[in-house]
Amino acid sequence: MSIKALILAGGSGTRFWPKSTKDKPKQFLKITSDKTMIQETVDRVQYLVNSKDVYVISNANHSNHILDQLKIEKDNLLLEPEGKNTAPAIAFGISQMNSDDIVIVLPSDHYIHDEKSYINVLKKSADFASNNDAIVTIGIKPNKPETGYGYIEVDKSILDKDDFVPVKRFHEKPNLETAYHYLESGNFFWNAGIFIFKVSVMKKAFKEFLPDMYRLFFESKKDIKEIYKLAESISIDYGIMEKANNIFMIHGDFGWSDVGSWDALYELVEKDKDGNYSDAKDTIFRDTKNCAVFAEGKTVAISHLEDIIVVVDGDKILITKRGTTQDVKNVKID
Amino acid sequence: MSIKALILAGGSGTRFWPKSTKDKPKQFLKITSDKTMIQETVDRVQYLVNSKDVYVISNANHSNHILDQLKIEKDNLLLEPEGKNTAPAIAFGISQMNSDDIVIVLPSDHYIHDEKSYINVLKKSADFASNNDAIVTIGIKPNKPETGYGYIEVDKSILDKDDFVPVKRFHEKPNLETAYHYLESGNFFWNAGIFIFKVSVMKKAFKEFLPDMYRLFFESKKDIKEIYKLAESISIDYGIMEKANNIFMIHGDFGWSDVGSWDALYELVEKDKDGNYSDAKDTIFRDTKNCAVFAEGKTVAISHLEDIIVVVDGDKILITKRGTTQDVKNVKID
Repeated sequence: MSIKALILAGGSGTRFWPKSTKDKPKQFLKITSDKTMIQETVDRVQYLVNSKDVYVISNANHSNHILDQLKIEKDNLLLEPEGKNTAPAIAFGISQMNSDDIVIVLPSDHYIHDEKSYINVLKKSADFASNNDAIVTIGIKPNKPETGYGYIEVDKSILDKDDFVPVKRFHEKPNLETAYHYLESGNFFWNAGIFIFKVSVMKKAFKEFLPDMYRLFFESKKDIKEIYKLAESISIDYGIMEKANNIFMIHGDFGWSDVGSWDALYELVEKDKDGNYSDAKDTIFRDTKNCAVFAEGKTVAISHLEDIIVVVDGDKILITKRGTTQDVKNVKID
Repeated sequence: MSIKALILAGGSGTRFWPKSTKDKPKQFLKITSDKTMIQETVDRVQYLVNSKDVYVISNANHSNHILDQLKIEKDNLLLEPEGKNTAPAIAFGISQMNSDDIVIVLPSDHYIHDEKSYINVLKKSADFASNNDAIVTIGIKPNKPETGYGYIEVDKSILDKDDFVPVKRFHEKPNLETAYHYLESGNFFWNAGIFIFKVSVMKKAFKEFLPDMYRLFFESKKDIKEIYKLAESISIDYGIMEKANNIFMIHGDFGWSDVGSWDALYELVEKDKDGNYSDAKDTIFRDTKNCAVFAEGKTVAISHLEDIIVVVDGDKILITKRGTTQDVKNVKID
């Protein structure tokens, strides 16, 4: 057995316009540090996984970014001929691995604050997955009624005693009222999209819940282009996690964000006493509060405003109200 | 007698940042049309004044812009070695003219909507100045309690009968309460900074109210650098207009703006039904009202905002609240 990482880098990111574009989605951008999100992800996991065991799966159109940004063995870069959501991506990934390998599936574009704690949770999860017929998922304790995430329901009284608790149910993104209920109950955790399992266990789940996909990826002799043409576009959550009864959750308390919008990024960055942030070359905030400027290399003056997010990338400029940046996908001009 | 135009282009413009800079103030920028403000001014006055009789006075540091933008006879470009406000500029200007010349003093950076009406008023004023021992000024009827302009007080009952009324008093920029009073009374007009007079009449006024300056410009044999070093820095309004008793006003009803701020420019431009304006290459306004974007060549998305002014010039960006742009002089980063 060895531990392998499978980093999902197929996202097409539309909420980080103007920085992200169809040709260069968020995972390939420097958003939370001087490294790109995928560089951060790969660097981080190597505290636990040998570099030769790190696999990246992504859309073939984005292979240039991966080759630019990562040192990765040729065989470990899995290129999808088309995007078909996470279930086919994971099937493709584990089809390259051995039955007794432990796989850590990681999104390529999330922020982790406390890397030591994160590695510790992954390590525990790998051990648990190695010794049990279980798929492990990491739950993040909500601190607000977020409607942008899926939720994992567990029994928190068990969680007080054990690191790993059986998952009662996966829930899709709730409305605000439901999200408030989830927040108050204490039994609901954010689904961070991280899964840890033995290859044989996941293959069994595919065989049971997505049998067509199982045959395509693990039995047919078709080439990958043909396989993807035939594969159903479905998420691992919907295709397997919501149906399997051997899912266990561990609470990840390491400071996590999916950095899913400019608002989410505003929450992460270090603000001044007026709640303002800027990464511009020169900035003046005059009579201005709770504003963020993402405009590297530019000179920006903001005057007499509150709760504004400004993003400048080359000749493209976004100016929007804080709290509305989920809507950025509707204003992007590519 | 001939009619000469003296265009004052010495302004240092700080309220049009980031477009205007110390090196290139507003008069040398394209603000209200495809021509620069000073090109507009010179073009316009030539309906009344021969091109060989158009004089421009400006800071020596800006001569490059004038030579780039205007076809002007070398002798008609008067370069000030340093900025000393409008009284020395006018003294310098008329020192180059004949005693019986009629001079029209014009700011170089104002907007005129109805050029025919404007030329008509200037022509009437030149005739009046030719036949009377009078300095003529043009008053603009206020349509709001503007605190950014000086005011001219007259007796409006006379104005109903005559084109030219004696000025009772010049008033400096008022506070808001006073500005409301001015607006209601009907006896107060905005001082557009346009003056029409015979050279001999103005020289007499200098001799009476600014005798030191009179001696410097009209009697001494010093070179212009020495003269400017010694000259008092004072406006023609404060130095002469407020003191002389032969000032007459004519009402100019031709659509005027000093375009003194981004707010003033917002008032002038043609907005869409939501009150938005943009000159950017591509613009999306989403759920946005009463915003203006001055960002030629850029791609701009504004989302969920109201009453914002955005200006982009190269790598410099200003984002400010409508109604506060008088304050831009305090945020500029040169």
